[in-house]
Amino acid sequence: MRFFAHGPRGHERVAVQHEGTAYDITSLTGERTAIDRSFLEQDGLARTREAIEAGTLPQIDETSDERVGTPLTPGKILCIGLNYLDHARETHAEIPAEPIVFMKAPDTVVGPDDDVLIPRGSVKTDWEVELGVVIGRTVRWTEDPREALDAVAGFVVAHDVSEREFQIERGGTWDKGKNCETFNPLGPYLVTADEIADPQDLRLRLSVNGTVRQDGTTADQIFGVGEVIAYLSRFMTLYPGDLINTGTPAGVAMGMPDQPYLRAGDVVELEIEGLGRQRQTFRSA
Amino acid sequence: MRFFAHGPRGHERVAVQHEGTAYDITSLTGERTAIDRSFLEQDGLARTREAIEAGTLPQIDETSDERVGTPLTPGKILCIGLNYLDHARETHAEIPAEPIVFMKAPDTVVGPDDDVLIPRGSVKTDWEVELGVVIGRTVRWTEDPREALDAVAGFVVAHDVSEREFQIERGGTWDKGKNCETFNPLGPYLVTADEIADPQDLRLRLSVNGTVRQDGTTADQIFGVGEVIAYLSRFMTLYPGDLINTGTPAGVAMGMPDQPYLRAGDVVELEIEGLGRQRQTFRSA
Repeated sequence: MRFFAHGPRGHERVAVQHEGTAYDITSLTGERTAIDRSFLEQDGLARTREAIEAGTLPQIDETSDERVGTPLTPGKILCIGLNYLDHARETHAEIPAEPIVFMKAPDTVVGPDDDVLIPRGSVKTDWEVELGVVIGRTVRWTEDPREALDAVAGFVVAHDVSEREFQIERGGTWDKGKNCETFNPLGPYLVTADEIADPQDLRLRLSVNGTVRQDGTTADQIFGVGEVIAYLSRFMTLYPGDLINTGTPAGVAMGMPDQPYLRAGDVVELEIEGLGRQRQTFRSA
Repeated sequence: MRFFAHGPRGHERVAVQHEGTAYDITSLTGERTAIDRSFLEQDGLARTREAIEAGTLPQIDETSDERVGTPLTPGKILCIGLNYLDHARETHAEIPAEPIVFMKAPDTVVGPDDDVLIPRGSVKTDWEVELGVVIGRTVRWTEDPREALDAVAGFVVAHDVSEREFQIERGGTWDKGKNCETFNPLGPYLVTADEIADPQDLRLRLSVNGTVRQDGTTADQIFGVGEVIAYLSRFMTLYPGDLINTGTPAGVAMGMPDQPYLRAGDVVELEIEGLGRQRQTFRSA
């Protein structure tokens, strides 16, 4: 199943795509504008599957040009830094001995094709295509990466937009450069885990104004999805609806000789195999 | 007004104390278990004040021994590190040139007297009494600390429980040691800003098993409340219901010669002048 949300911001309706057909599931999601913790805790995925099989859901036309929103309202967003060898090298960072963790606030999330705002005073706004992992059940103190992987509800394309000066040159932790308004486009689809044969074999691509800048594979992650979840669960409790942005491959502006940071009017397109495609226009805040 | 929440976890009722009398305000808060973003956005504070004045709220008995919950369900939690000179010195850290920012997930919040869990494998669980600032209206790009201060809805006692090994010795940012389950006791009261004459003149105290460990004043903050809000607003948007933990004065375990980190069975009591008192028993997770 591929969950998505469509409609004006704050008024999205939740839907699901399954075997080529799209269904409205607002009979199951109610007032929610996206999948969230309570929907997952109340067995929403299984109930959606049952409703599809029972034939009780109204079909909808997915070809309309309506706005697409985030498919997930995350509980918290955890991000893994420098999780691809080539990206760690391009930023002249040490290869991390254990996962580097930072956070984004859920209020940074926007739809996959919404405008992204370049913060006032920013000269180093950068892109990062990432595999987003959505937690499906509560995880505490898991040691086994395979068991951890079983807790995944699904996967999503995440754009971990970053302001490098705020992140690195202003003292303290990275959070300062990761939490600007609109800095986490998410979606279009929350694809359930059963549809992804191997999360460590997904191609990620990102282009800016038509020029390919990132072209990597999750096979190159230093810490794989299961390892990351197990690791995090030793430090904090993961709840259904939590999102983990698992890091970005090489090709960010910071790592390039001319550092072509984003400017108002730039168009960024990104996609992950099997998870869909995003397209954002960057604007001045 | 002093807002509080009482009842079993997940089923709290919201109430307000005003001029010595406590009133149930569930007619205004509905299903909410605490003050939150939507309540503040819908002018909840003003509507509560009007209802008190109109005499339409049922009085309640606040002397019962019912559990007290968090008075706030925060949108996001931003924390300021090393914001008291004496605390920066005791931890042998450099005095920050600009505020150090890190984050806690709202799912770490518990009531002021709930048990706090020492994470498995932890040997460096530490205390930090902090003035919590609750944002009342959206703040973007504010330059003026006085204008920023006008956006404050109220103040609250926050316990920024911290695991020092996770925070400092495990690579990456501090977030790893700040987000363990139950690591942010909050309350008992969300005291509205009009009741606090000067947020830079509040005494903060914390004791462990009856021994005073922290005894400071917000007068010693390096960056005052208004400055912190204005600073943050240059990097991210602050929304009603966001919480800022503004840092801790000297006296944490990490800064003492014998580093008496918390153990199961320890009792921590903390209070801030005018905001109330917390008391937690620490337990093994």
